[in-house]
Amino acid sequence: MKKYWTRQITPEKHGSEVTVAGWVWEIRDLGRIKFLVLRDREGFVQITLKPGKTPEHLFDTFSELNREDVILVKGVVEASKIAKSGVEIFPREMWILNKSKPLPIDIWSETTDLPTRLKWRSVDLKRPRNLQIFTTASKILRVMREVFYEEGFVEVFTPKIIATTTEGGAELFPVFYFERVAYLSQSPQLYKEQLTASLERVFEIGPAYRAERHNTDFHLNEFISVDAEAAFMNYADVMDILEKIIRRISELLQTEKTEVVSIGESVPRVDYGEALDKLNQAGYSVEWGSDLTVEMQKYLTKHYGLVYFIVNFPPSLRPFYTKNDGVRSESFDLIIDGIEVASGATRIHKREELEGEMKKRGLNPHMFESHLAVFDYGMPPHAGFGLGFNRLVTALLGLGNVRYATLYPRDRYRLEP
Amino acid sequence: MKKYWTRQITPEKHGSEVTVAGWVWEIRDLGRIKFLVLRDREGFVQITLKPGKTPEHLFDTFSELNREDVILVKGVVEASKIAKSGVEIFPREMWILNKSKPLPIDIWSETTDLPTRLKWRSVDLKRPRNLQIFTTASKILRVMREVFYEEGFVEVFTPKIIATTTEGGAELFPVFYFERVAYLSQSPQLYKEQLTASLERVFEIGPAYRAERHNTDFHLNEFISVDAEAAFMNYADVMDILEKIIRRISELLQTEKTEVVSIGESVPRVDYGEALDKLNQAGYSVEWGSDLTVEMQKYLTKHYGLVYFIVNFPPSLRPFYTKNDGVRSESFDLIIDGIEVASGATRIHKREELEGEMKKRGLNPHMFESHLAVFDYGMPPHAGFGLGFNRLVTALLGLGNVRYATLYPRDRYRLEP
Repeated sequence: MKKYWTRQITPEKHGSEVTVAGWVWEIRDLGRIKFLVLRDREGFVQITLKPGKTPEHLFDTFSELNREDVILVKGVVEASKIAKSGVEIFPREMWILNKSKPLPIDIWSETTDLPTRLKWRSVDLKRPRNLQIFTTASKILRVMREVFYEEGFVEVFTPKIIATTTEGGAELFPVFYFERVAYLSQSPQLYKEQLTASLERVFEIGPAYRAERHNTDFHLNEFISVDAEAAFMNYADVMDILEKIIRRISELLQTEKTEVVSIGESVPRVDYGEALDKLNQAGYSVEWGSDLTVEMQKYLTKHYGLVYFIVNFPPSLRPFYTKNDGVRSESFDLIIDGIEVASGATRIHKREELEGEMKKRGLNPHMFESHLAVFDYGMPPHAGFGLGFNRLVTALLGLGNVRYATLYPRDRYRLEP
Repeated sequence: MKKYWTRQITPEKHGSEVTVAGWVWEIRDLGRIKFLVLRDREGFVQITLKPGKTPEHLFDTFSELNREDVILVKGVVEASKIAKSGVEIFPREMWILNKSKPLPIDIWSETTDLPTRLKWRSVDLKRPRNLQIFTTASKILRVMREVFYEEGFVEVFTPKIIATTTEGGAELFPVFYFERVAYLSQSPQLYKEQLTASLERVFEIGPAYRAERHNTDFHLNEFISVDAEAAFMNYADVMDILEKIIRRISELLQTEKTEVVSIGESVPRVDYGEALDKLNQAGYSVEWGSDLTVEMQKYLTKHYGLVYFIVNFPPSLRPFYTKNDGVRSESFDLIIDGIEVASGATRIHKREELEGEMKKRGLNPHMFESHLAVFDYGMPPHAGFGLGFNRLVTALLGLGNVRYATLYPRDRYRLEP
């Protein structure tokens, strides 16, 4: 018995018998004629009961139904001018697979506030908008990986339990690992760099952890990081790859008709200095060496569109492993709708240079000896980027809060469900 | 400047100029004529220097080279009857991008023991066999995801920091999450089941954590779990999907010529009771309700081949959420080469039944209230499985120890690198 998705029940199926399964979205009892709308992940379909046409006992089944009951329906498709999707199913058999109590939150309108929705997240996810967000997120992942494969990248998994603070600086969550204290990884940065010396081009899509105490619309303490690193490439090369990914996603969203953010002929690569000039001309007062705020990044969309890179940041704004000439670094941020979605750079591949940058930042090279040692044994020139997947979905779909793009968010005060 | 992979340098490229980059694998100085073999992720290519044919200064560059130095070579391809790959490159230009010290371990032979190899893992990964293992692992991942997409699954990410012990029983790693103690997730089991009530068919490929103190060839404390769960399916349906995945991987390995495990017309689904009969006939003494050992599972390959399912385990051997009739459960293990690679089942979708099974196992339903509550609001019948990715690669490639299939393993005594 093949189960059809509701979106597969089209007027072309007129006359054929199909089986659908899902949840009771709506019940309409017009006396003799009775309707119900069945929801599944992919959409809706109308089930129509008519005396004479519908087996008697199905009216009894119908009378027992509540919203969100789980049902299985076998019936015949008829094209219809009245039904919303141009089609309805006349059931031959109908089974209630599980009953539902009245839902604790309203999934039919937008009246429920975010904390309550997140409290009942598994129920909230039945909301059609949520089904759309997370099926689209999955398609975006698929598109990203396809680009990585095309570009010769290998998918890897690096450990999330680590012995020491990797990059220094950031706050980490401690883990009790048997007799030792370990930490949750904030980024696969050092592992992926080391892997360029063997697998050359690697990408990883997995969780990353930041024990930061802020609670904003764009930060989570556990998020999905898309990391890429490639030997024999520089920051322009990896921007090309990132641009290809964004373009491919944009095409996907166009076919899905859910596009919020559109991309021009090419994604502008705006020099940090030029961005500062534009901002200072507009009355912002930004000095060389300052980070740009979300407000400034939003302002810059007036000049550069919704999607642009800022490139060549001063070295002081970037981590120790960023290649630079002392004034400018070979670095970039990808900004979508004012939000920093990705960061990348050409990395330093010479040990002495790396040690020098550590010292400039007050980091002790001895603490990084196991990482630095790898640079003694044939480290290639390399470049890469990290992209916040939750932020990407938030920015592309215009969700305004990264929690809407996360199934079960983890933040300062949220550890459940 | 397009960089070629070494495997793209074929006799058909005779006469064309190419650029390759990689590591010095071998240096052979025959006096007037000098050779070096360049390694990249995909293979090897011979670079030949000949007086008259090769620019003078390249002989100086050659004399500076050590094994594992990183070089970039621009040259002309010539088909060759002597060179191993049937082709050699006569360099026009050659740059040393980074020098390498003599390696701390031998990557050219199999003499180094596993602990030493893992200590120097980033260097060890340059070993050609390792490049093959991890590029193959990436291809296996791609194949698995393609089957999931074909079957209408959506990729999800569930949190790895959780508030409570999810399934009960297993040992968990504690995490300090701000003011609270949290845990690392041992499995996305409860989340993926809840998601069948909205996204219907979900899969997740991500890390899972078990704080078990044993130290065997087939256990890691952090491993990659491939989890799938589907509404309106039973255990036979998800075995079909798993079988499709294994078949697709087998086809992949055949084209890659790295196949160790082959699969017959269909993967046998061996009843637990029948397996016990076979074992007892062979002199093993196994009672109903006992788990099978690796040795027994290896023995059964004589009857069923290298890849088989064991199905219908007694409920006492399975977790509380496994559908059963009191005697047999709708459950399965996938065994490859004697190793349990995946486990799955039809799940219980009725709250009362689930509570009953918890009580039978001494679990307090109140501890699971937030999970059970979801079952009140339209939980569909569902089934799924979890597969250990590191074990799968180990079994398929005949590696014998799961650490060989893991970039940076985490075990009882290993937290670095």
